[in-house]
Amino acid sequence: MDTATPESLFTPELMEWIKDNIPLLNSMEVSFDLFQQGELTISCPLEPNINDKGTAFGGSIAALATICGWLYTTLYARTRIEDCAAVIADSQMTYHAPGTGRISARCKSTVPEKFFARLSDRRNAKLDLTVELFSQVEEQESPVKIATYNGIYVAMP
Amino acid sequence: MDTATPESLFTPELMEWIKDNIPLLNSMEVSFDLFQQGELTISCPLEPNINDKGTAFGGSIAALATICGWLYTTLYARTRIEDCAAVIADSQMTYHAPGTGRISARCKSTVPEKFFARLSDRRNAKLDLTVELFSQVEEQESPVKIATYNGIYVAMP
Repeated sequence: MDTATPESLFTPELMEWIKDNIPLLNSMEVSFDLFQQGELTISCPLEPNINDKGTAFGGSIAALATICGWLYTTLYARTRIEDCAAVIADSQMTYHAPGTGRISARCKSTVPEKFFARLSDRRNAKLDLTVELFSQVEEQESPVKIATYNGIYVAMP
Repeated sequence: MDTATPESLFTPELMEWIKDNIPLLNSMEVSFDLFQQGELTISCPLEPNINDKGTAFGGSIAALATICGWLYTTLYARTRIEDCAAVIADSQMTYHAPGTGRISARCKSTVPEKFFARLSDRRNAKLDLTVELFSQVEEQESPVKIATYNGIYVAMP
């Protein structure tokens, strides 16, 4: 498994498996859009994630960020340990602006060598990630940054 | 409105309105259980909120905590300003243990006089709340604390 790249593990089969095992992602209509050059993007439409003000529900934004960081951790962990599990340990979110359109979460991070070294020793390995949340009403519009999330995840061989 | 108590505003009509306006709460099967002596309890079953490990999805726990604090803020704000809106500004969650049964969120806080004073002046008012998250497999069992959440909400007249 040492030669696997996280991009090569971002497969339709893994995405199907995630949706089969975390039903809330189907309610949210989450799509796993892209994992390219170390940046993961996932998104969901506004409608199933709307609130009383007609904007994105904070709980949906939190759930989208949580799964984005979790998937990022899982993909990198599995380059060393096949089927490695990951859990969320701690998170922090700052909300900047209401989300008025499709919501996306993006994660790109430098994964420290220590993370891989601990996994290779079959020890739990922490990853501290920033996920940025955006909203976009129309595809041609610039996305608006609506929240910044920080999550600490633990990969467990 | 000065004589309304937050408990008197915890009505079936308000709970219906919330569920009608935040559809994800229906997907999560959230129930608004109790608001008594200043303590709000809401909960949801494990099944629609499960993850790949057969325990509570962190995103569901975050969404439950978010709505618990939001409802708490809304109830207190509406004792001063009818139909007062509230938004989440910042949140922090520490996960302690996996949730293996029904998940509940509890919030009880001393609401500072400044919060009410600002609302009476029709100014935005911040509320800093702690929400504790529990899991319980069987009703007769003791609930296990699975996470601690801190949220800063803004009530907006």
